[in-house]
Amino acid sequence: MKPRKDLLDIASLTDEEIEFVLSNAVPFKDLFKRSVKKVPTLRGRSVLTLFYEPSTRTRSSFEVAANRLSADVTNFDVESSSVVKGESVVDTVETLEAMRVDYIVVRHKQSGTPNLIARSTRASVINAGDGWHAHPTQALLDAFTLREKLKDIRGARVVIVGDIQHSRVARSTSLLLRRLGAQVAYLAPGSLMPRDLPPDVTTFHSWDDVLTNFRPDVVYLLRVQMERQGEQFFPSLGEYHKLFGLTDARLQVLRERKLWLMHPGPVNRGVEITDAGMNYERSLINEQVENGIAVRMSVLYWLRPGAE
Amino acid sequence: MKPRKDLLDIASLTDEEIEFVLSNAVPFKDLFKRSVKKVPTLRGRSVLTLFYEPSTRTRSSFEVAANRLSADVTNFDVESSSVVKGESVVDTVETLEAMRVDYIVVRHKQSGTPNLIARSTRASVINAGDGWHAHPTQALLDAFTLREKLKDIRGARVVIVGDIQHSRVARSTSLLLRRLGAQVAYLAPGSLMPRDLPPDVTTFHSWDDVLTNFRPDVVYLLRVQMERQGEQFFPSLGEYHKLFGLTDARLQVLRERKLWLMHPGPVNRGVEITDAGMNYERSLINEQVENGIAVRMSVLYWLRPGAE
Amino acid sequence: MKPRKDLLDIASLTDEEIEFVLSNAVPFKDLFKRSVKKVPTLRGRSVLTLFYEPSTRTRSSFEVAANRLSADVTNFDVESSSVVKGESVVDTVETLEAMRVDYIVVRHKQSGTPNLIARSTRASVINAGDGWHAHPTQALLDAFTLREKLKDIRGARVVIVGDIQHSRVARSTSLLLRRLGAQVAYLAPGSLMPRDLPPDVTTFHSWDDVLTNFRPDVVYLLRVQMERQGEQFFPSLGEYHKLFGLTDARLQVLRERKLWLMHPGPVNRGVEITDAGMNYERSLINEQVENGIAVRMSVLYWLRPGAE
Repeated sequence: MKPRKDLLDIASLTDEEIEFVLSNAVPFKDLFKRSVKKVPTLRGRSVLTLFYEPSTRTRSSFEVAANRLSADVTNFDVESSSVVKGESVVDTVETLEAMRVDYIVVRHKQSGTPNLIARSTRASVINAGDGWHAHPTQALLDAFTLREKLKDIRGARVVIVGDIQHSRVARSTSLLLRRLGAQVAYLAPGSLMPRDLPPDVTTFHSWDDVLTNFRPDVVYLLRVQMERQGEQFFPSLGEYHKLFGLTDARLQVLRERKLWLMHPGPVNRGVEITDAGMNYERSLINEQVENGIAVRMSVLYWLRPGAE
Repeated sequence: MKPRKDLLDIASLTDEEIEFVLSNAVPFKDLFKRSVKKVPTLRGRSVLTLFYEPSTRTRSSFEVAANRLSADVTNFDVESSSVVKGESVVDTVETLEAMRVDYIVVRHKQSGTPNLIARSTRASVINAGDGWHAHPTQALLDAFTLREKLKDIRGARVVIVGDIQHSRVARSTSLLLRRLGAQVAYLAPGSLMPRDLPPDVTTFHSWDDVLTNFRPDVVYLLRVQMERQGEQFFPSLGEYHKLFGLTDARLQVLRERKLWLMHPGPVNRGVEITDAGMNYERSLINEQVENGIAVRMSVLYWLRPGAE
Repeated sequence: MKPRKDLLDIASLTDEEIEFVLSNAVPFKDLFKRSVKKVPTLRGRSVLTLFYEPSTRTRSSFEVAANRLSADVTNFDVESSSVVKGESVVDTVETLEAMRVDYIVVRHKQSGTPNLIARSTRASVINAGDGWHAHPTQALLDAFTLREKLKDIRGARVVIVGDIQHSRVARSTSLLLRRLGAQVAYLAPGSLMPRDLPPDVTTFHSWDDVLTNFRPDVVYLLRVQMERQGEQFFPSLGEYHKLFGLTDARLQVLRERKLWLMHPGPVNRGVEITDAGMNYERSLINEQVENGIAVRMSVLYWLRPGAE
């Protein structure tokens, strides 16, 4: 396996690399059962988080992952810094490169920004979400979570529900699960369904249709981006819930058929899921969070700053 | 002594537990005289701070305490995260629980939130202030500070001055000092005196009265919550100072009688205390800060994540 | 060499101290080439950053420097804390003193604030920029950077360009370079040239003049403080660029004469420098950033909390 510097998207990964990350996450997760949840693997290495969009959860997940590998973490606070706000990303990255940090974890609303950064630095760059493009550690943690439950992802039937069009989660997770042999379907309103679909993805516009004709093993609900509400892709949140949310009636079907439930978090209660859905015994939402740390540890362990 | 998972309030502590925390804070404080102020006690454990109300001082105190025990600290930034803002506390805590953090230090304006959190997680929850309800580490550091000066708190006469009604500090500290055998009095304007008073607390409405008839050993001034000024519990800050502040004339009495002076900080100069009062030789305000770190180390050392 | 508690400005340093800091920065910089960029020198010591003006770059530089010495870092968040906002600096510092932190790194818009703080605490205070007064670690990193390139600063000719009047960088760096034997000139519009100039500094008002008659080895561009634009010291940014910026034509002269280029960062592209200037092969801007960490490590290593 060639050393790899960056994790920018799922498409560029080899099968061997995917397997390496997923299988090494297992011992890292085992660590969490101990009282000392820490290994000295990255002692003396520095991880810098560079979030142009706020995300407390993802940032904290990387921070805890880095701590558990004994790395030092610096949060480079782009938002509160009026100075850096006006500075171009390239100039900021030249600064970070000069600081000799080893890993840069970046989130940016513009697709492709992590790639741009990766080209300007010897540091390993990890894409923690860029625009509608990619969120590869989310995809890896989703695959890890499913593999833990299903043993083998091959042949698993997964329906992804919601705003597919604007979702980097949908894009990355769908791609990775298909590479691992899953059958993926999309359930979305017409206004939120992408035009250029992969040929091996089936689309649906109603729960009845997808439950009857696709018969999923796993239901993966996307988060409704509240901040995008102004754009009116659907009439109202109530309407969305009725048509595309996991209502209590639909939850009943999941329960009868023992389907797995996933969501990248944080959940909008009453929109994607009801209160009852949050307590569903086959919900994997919290396991996704835990696995997120293990998988991010595995990614940090795998990447080689300065490679290529 | 049974292992204890959480520190939620003073009322639920046994005498043995109080003694354990107070006496173990002594060697932790001794550590601060060394150049290496650190012990490996909590190496590999993670402490997460979850502050729904900003408090740089209290948060930093816990952060330094955790560092000195070699724990890793993550500040979960609730305020800046628009996403988490809309999320229920319960859902946030499920996430933290999934991240396998060992200690959650929480501040929230709603009384009872730390209890709610404690029930949803195996992590040890430490209440760092909830509404008007409790602020147990403040009470413990106050008791520790007084014990250091008076050797024994039994029989000590402490008057707490100010907005008793809305003060979690008054509630927790008063409760703990009385349990340890102190005599506690309240001095407050009628509008800021609680209705349901403990039977062993005497109330006063003027400094003259309390100094003449209660004859305190310790004067504990509460902070005036500036942000609550809109509600007009007293006509003006000047008025408050004149009637309930430690004026220079009253300071003179404290000095003559060698009374101890306490305040939870930060002080509003010119309101609770004058500039002269800030230099009073028997002020324990800075010692309260130092002892805060020692006592919080002792609390982290005492609690057992996963207990019960 | 007497132990020194604080670094407040360049003026108070002895030659021996300057030499100590500059020469010890060399092995710290060598460390950055290793995979483990960390030494245990300050294990168990605590560094607290207290920034009353935001500066992500400088704060992060100190944070990374402290991490690489194995110290613990706490960011005392003055800005977000409404409580601390109203509190006097002196009261805040009494709190930090009581917390027994070892180093306080302070930035404040009021000149002299770090001196005030240094007098109230046993902690070592490092001035990270106060008003127009001083920014000593910037000066030290600038001197270190030049010495690395020129071997000896004696006789080097350095022109500092821009808003000299309001620049603590100009003040500190100019002073240190002259102490080390450099010839310093200022190039600035009349409105931004200080009245009381050191006798050994020559002033210029046009690039032509300075390039012809001063013949610099090093061009040091100051940052235009965008937030000070309201005050109208020059007609417009375009005007500033034309008259005092490093235009492509001037860059050509630098290139022909092999002059070094410096800037404290972050750069306003199109104002102080063009895009072409950012790629100039003798630009030391990124090296200044890297050296900033090494020099700050050296400063932390040198200072003795509690000395004097």
